[in-house]
Amino acid sequence: MTATAYDPIAFHDGLVAHGLIVPAGVQGIFGRGPVFEDILERFDRMVLDIGKSDGAQAMLFPPTIDRSIIEKTNYMESFPHLVGAVYSFFGKETESRKMAEQVKAGESWGDHLSMTHVCLNPAACYPVYPTFTGTVPAEGRLVTLVGWVFRHEPSIEPTRMQAFRIREYVRCGTPEQVVQWRDMWLQRGVQLLESLGLPARTDVASDPFFGKGGKMLATNQVDQQLKFEVLVPVISQEKPTAVCSFNFHQDKFGQAFDIRTPDGAVANTACLGFGLERVVMALLQTHGFDPGTWPESVCRKLWA
Amino acid sequence: MTATAYDPIAFHDGLVAHGLIVPAGVQGIFGRGPVFEDILERFDRMVLDIGKSDGAQAMLFPPTIDRSIIEKTNYMESFPHLVGAVYSFFGKETESRKMAEQVKAGESWGDHLSMTHVCLNPAACYPVYPTFTGTVPAEGRLVTLVGWVFRHEPSIEPTRMQAFRIREYVRCGTPEQVVQWRDMWLQRGVQLLESLGLPARTDVASDPFFGKGGKMLATNQVDQQLKFEVLVPVISQEKPTAVCSFNFHQDKFGQAFDIRTPDGAVANTACLGFGLERVVMALLQTHGFDPGTWPESVCRKLWA
Repeated sequence: MTATAYDPIAFHDGLVAHGLIVPAGVQGIFGRGPVFEDILERFDRMVLDIGKSDGAQAMLFPPTIDRSIIEKTNYMESFPHLVGAVYSFFGKETESRKMAEQVKAGESWGDHLSMTHVCLNPAACYPVYPTFTGTVPAEGRLVTLVGWVFRHEPSIEPTRMQAFRIREYVRCGTPEQVVQWRDMWLQRGVQLLESLGLPARTDVASDPFFGKGGKMLATNQVDQQLKFEVLVPVISQEKPTAVCSFNFHQDKFGQAFDIRTPDGAVANTACLGFGLERVVMALLQTHGFDPGTWPESVCRKLWA
Repeated sequence: MTATAYDPIAFHDGLVAHGLIVPAGVQGIFGRGPVFEDILERFDRMVLDIGKSDGAQAMLFPPTIDRSIIEKTNYMESFPHLVGAVYSFFGKETESRKMAEQVKAGESWGDHLSMTHVCLNPAACYPVYPTFTGTVPAEGRLVTLVGWVFRHEPSIEPTRMQAFRIREYVRCGTPEQVVQWRDMWLQRGVQLLESLGLPARTDVASDPFFGKGGKMLATNQVDQQLKFEVLVPVISQEKPTAVCSFNFHQDKFGQAFDIRTPDGAVANTACLGFGLERVVMALLQTHGFDPGTWPESVCRKLWA
């Protein structure tokens, strides 16, 4: 029996009522309670266990990244509406006093700030690519990390967050190495989610590119099968939620950050990411708000 | 024998050379390698173990918070130079194309963005206070969390970060409850750091308030002994680094978020935070870049 028969608002309210999430004043920004975090950490450990023998290099980056990564990857061409650029105050004391008065009066004060050199990270993998610059070894590179990502899309719908965590794997090498690895993980991802009692299925997908020009980019992405998702119903049975996403970038990041394979060719990259909060929500919707009542087979896998 | 005799630049370069941190293009923003993260997690677990019997409620918040928290707490009066406000693009396709061209041409493009409803979190505890609104129980409230915080102060000096994590405890109740709790943790903090072979000492301190008016605020803070720090030499023997900070806010947050004790008085709050990256750096400076060569007594405590 599902928690709220896929009703998004009832699901949000149920998450709050059970202390799983804590409202924090802005849509898509909320606190996580200890039970939510426990499920999230256990699932993350399951992913790491599956990938253990692949020998991925572990890294961790802050939620803020070098703005030039956004600029070099043409992010503002594809997703300007989702960006989070960090602004700060560079003025002197007189101006700061005026600004503080405006803040107190409830007036707008944004004109006093200017752009810094950092942006919020829009995808956990972005800070990894610049570390690949140069020639990668013959077997390529494989990195894993968890990162907080930001997308400016406030929504009451709980799976549509402004801030969330992704467990990501990043692969770099020849097109064959990268695609073979992506296909292996597509299978692993579905198996993992099914083993937790989730009705998962894969599909070809496209990114939420901006504007009319973006529709062409999306069509192209689908035609070339560059993006796959693993979907599980969370807030709709007809439109299941992407809980895991697989992106083959071809040589986009290789070009942007001058990454090469030993034969001198521009390297290809792919990444995959489990949306950790979304997986937790999929489990809570499918099995109920109280993990104490979940099927024993699911609990045994998570809390083994 | 220390790692670099407290030389800040040599220490930064040593952290990079040993794969402990990974440069990421902007000062104060860097990746963390697996050894760095392992030490950090082990230390964090030691802190949690010490506080275990206090029954703190666990929470977790994203690195981005409701902008109104910054506004209600007068952050822009005290620390305008450190703020990180999140801006995004709200325009249409024509403007977005112009912006994308400016990005490609290496021109400034910040004028196309506007303020969103979120800011970067400047102190792990900030999102906790609004959850206390109302009347707290007679025994008060106690919350623990780890959070990414942001301060706009780019620096090559490795302990001066733009993004870092704090293990924080937040206490709310009567002035007596709060101060007694703060004093207990001051002792615990020094003992914990000393048990890891760190030459720790406490001192009264002040926040880096902005401008000339800020000097008065800082003097007042010291006179009233509202802020204490635990200091350990990391990049200077004469000016040791604050690795743990204790702040007694009196009724500041109680006023801002309408928090009361059962007798109807405005509640007092205090918080303490271990700067997790700074503690790791203190250990690496004090005992050397390779944990394999650290004193056995230290390793036994961390990796017990």
